[in-house]
Amino acid sequence: MITGALHLDLDRDRPVALHRQIETAIRDAIRSGRLPLGAALPSTRTLSADLGVSRGTVVEAYQQLTAEGYLSSRGGGYTYVAAGARPPRPTPRPAPPSRPRIDFGYGRADVSSFPRAAWLRSVRRVLNDAPGDRLGYLNGRGSPELRDALSGYLNRVRGTDIDPDHMVICSGFAQGVSLVLHAAAARGARRLAVEDPTSQDAVQVARALGLQVVGIPVGEDGADVAALAASDADVVVLTPSHQWPLGAVLPPESRAAVIEWAVRRGALVVEDDYDAEYRYDRAPIGAMQGLAPDHVVHAGSVSKTLAPGLRLGWLAVPHDLADAVADAKILADRGSSSIEQLALADFLERGELDRHLRRMRPVYRRRRDVLLAALRERLPDLEPTGVSAGIHLVAWLPPDLDEESVIAAARARGVGIAGLRPHRMSPAGRDALIFGYSSIGERAIAEGVALVAEAIADVRGR
Amino acid sequence: MITGALHLDLDRDRPVALHRQIETAIRDAIRSGRLPLGAALPSTRTLSADLGVSRGTVVEAYQQLTAEGYLSSRGGGYTYVAAGARPPRPTPRPAPPSRPRIDFGYGRADVSSFPRAAWLRSVRRVLNDAPGDRLGYLNGRGSPELRDALSGYLNRVRGTDIDPDHMVICSGFAQGVSLVLHAAAARGARRLAVEDPTSQDAVQVARALGLQVVGIPVGEDGADVAALAASDADVVVLTPSHQWPLGAVLPPESRAAVIEWAVRRGALVVEDDYDAEYRYDRAPIGAMQGLAPDHVVHAGSVSKTLAPGLRLGWLAVPHDLADAVADAKILADRGSSSIEQLALADFLERGELDRHLRRMRPVYRRRRDVLLAALRERLPDLEPTGVSAGIHLVAWLPPDLDEESVIAAARARGVGIAGLRPHRMSPAGRDALIFGYSSIGERAIAEGVALVAEAIADVRGR
Repeated sequence: MITGALHLDLDRDRPVALHRQIETAIRDAIRSGRLPLGAALPSTRTLSADLGVSRGTVVEAYQQLTAEGYLSSRGGGYTYVAAGARPPRPTPRPAPPSRPRIDFGYGRADVSSFPRAAWLRSVRRVLNDAPGDRLGYLNGRGSPELRDALSGYLNRVRGTDIDPDHMVICSGFAQGVSLVLHAAAARGARRLAVEDPTSQDAVQVARALGLQVVGIPVGEDGADVAALAASDADVVVLTPSHQWPLGAVLPPESRAAVIEWAVRRGALVVEDDYDAEYRYDRAPIGAMQGLAPDHVVHAGSVSKTLAPGLRLGWLAVPHDLADAVADAKILADRGSSSIEQLALADFLERGELDRHLRRMRPVYRRRRDVLLAALRERLPDLEPTGVSAGIHLVAWLPPDLDEESVIAAARARGVGIAGLRPHRMSPAGRDALIFGYSSIGERAIAEGVALVAEAIADVRGR
Repeated sequence: MITGALHLDLDRDRPVALHRQIETAIRDAIRSGRLPLGAALPSTRTLSADLGVSRGTVVEAYQQLTAEGYLSSRGGGYTYVAAGARPPRPTPRPAPPSRPRIDFGYGRADVSSFPRAAWLRSVRRVLNDAPGDRLGYLNGRGSPELRDALSGYLNRVRGTDIDPDHMVICSGFAQGVSLVLHAAAARGARRLAVEDPTSQDAVQVARALGLQVVGIPVGEDGADVAALAASDADVVVLTPSHQWPLGAVLPPESRAAVIEWAVRRGALVVEDDYDAEYRYDRAPIGAMQGLAPDHVVHAGSVSKTLAPGLRLGWLAVPHDLADAVADAKILADRGSSSIEQLALADFLERGELDRHLRRMRPVYRRRRDVLLAALRERLPDLEPTGVSAGIHLVAWLPPDLDEESVIAAARARGVGIAGLRPHRMSPAGRDALIFGYSSIGERAIAEGVALVAEAIADVRGR
């Protein structure tokens, strides 16, 4: 009897209409395969008598399931199953990979220090005050309030020369470089130069777009400008304020040479203005964009100052590229969240970012000092570099150690740490470890270095 | 005298260090061209004496500007300008295009009714309670809290069969379809079928990816399934619950035929589950995804239920596509805002979306009724279609009118309204107007229709 297969136990006390209960039971039976494809259902007259409900109740359930495509009817009121069972669910949710106990991960602010109360105040002001149309679709450039606030902030703090009309708000550097590369490729760019080593953000996107990618070696003084000149590139992505990951500052002569190259070739410089907010032992260096706003894209985000979870970044682009980049943003996702754009504008205008950075700089500086002291004490044959700014450092390994073995041995001791190799464009080069210190306390840093020292002893003892 | 060119008026009362004031004045003079490329600066000794400041103050300013690339020095302490002037700013910000006084725009919720207080409560709970790591980077699928809440909601309300592990949170339908098409193209898809007429979201992305795009005619019963079967497509984007823009519901037999086609060809169906929340005169129709979760992508967003400005949408994808779509999301933008994802999860779990929709349905229904009555009275020779659900309707124009003339004449009378032609894949077909009624009050609707009637009289009177 079909009502058995359906487990059609109607519960007249449930706050669910009887026709809905019938509908759900039949749908579940079809999905599970208990009612197979093609199976005939009892007539509405029979089923209503069986269940002690009105015929109209059953008719309504059958009509709904017919409308949804589960049932179909032939002439004469004969109703049958029109959809097949689903295959069983593949597997239960896999357990997430276990986290290291001490994690020297890099590339993000200390999210445990995110200024939640100040951010909530900004969101509240936006929800109280923003005109209704700000909750609709914005144009591709993003909220004018945020572009005004950001250009004011960056022109003040980073020495940029940004016109808010030439900004495009985006979801962070990864999306930003993607939008710029889309626009550059549409304008005919064929070859991208990146620093070597480099973050892979631009590389992945460029390859997906069919651009050639060439690495420019990085030395003590940042990217090798002669190699850039010889690269035949149309676009270069640089980290002049604090080379990622090695930490060098691009010297003035090199900046001038890069700009001269860009002007001569009609090439585009994308400046990833990375880590400039955290300086410890050197003077602030203005952004390159201020020298040549018509040739340099300035790109930044709040991922390393506030939290990656906000997914907010920006581009300041040469005026002849602004429309194309804004169009690319519209095509990509129709714009970033307007409430959060307005909240960040309020947050900046009230000086909350300045305040947060003033609070965090000494915290990060102390963590860096503890890390350097621990490395000196426990791992004197590692050579730290890029230590005068930022929220990570790179430590060169001595020649007898390879980074993959050290990383695996550290992992076995509960320490997460990354190596340099995944960021290299060419296979040659010294191995190194990347110690992010933004998100672990001073005690854990010292303990983590001790554990890495033990891991290195493990590797050497084999 | 150079200090004149620099307007070097130091203000000892300003809370800005003197070396900063010198630095800013020189930088501005270089940028404006008052100090040309190659110009020599006074020695630090001379300038410090001129200004009555310590020599160290001037040295610090020169060093900073040298570090930024504005100045350079040759042997003997001789300092000159190393960067050129910027060309003058192109043009002041253009005035935004004037808005129509009455706007029958479509495709968005009434943002003036956005439940600001309830949303703020959800944001506050997230900022109070969310663990710190939720503010870092999430994986490509998005917040598990939101995927759990959404799958629960959709499985209950839309009759879907969604496993939260196969969801990917995205920025709305436009990004969602882009992610799916990227993954499908990477798997070898070459040809996309879309309804004709259709929203252009998928079309633009498909063309950018190099896919062929073919239109499937839409009739009274939605998409023509026979034309789909003959289309040789690998992917089809459909709006089965409420065809966009014509409003037809895809009948059960057609749904079954589409799924059979997809299974036979190994093709992918993308279900844009559009407007299903607003029904007035018909029974709810479950989503197609519930019939065949391994062949149908279910895509939706909050743009038409809450506000486009949130930029939150979702995909429920067949299990064999989930990793590829999540990877595409990571490549595109590293994920959507985590605070807003968690806020939406809280908002759903507390029944706030149900509450908001219960509040809005009668509002939209009354606006539709006023619109239909006004059209009957003032424009009886227009034929409304797709009126039983949604937040817009299409009105066919009689053969003597072309939509572009009517749109222009309406615009001249202060009414914004769209036509059907920009959404057609093939040039043939009747002209029509699209009346969005979500975002204007009842009085403005009646007035707007009267103005469109006058505009049509203008066109006919020419």
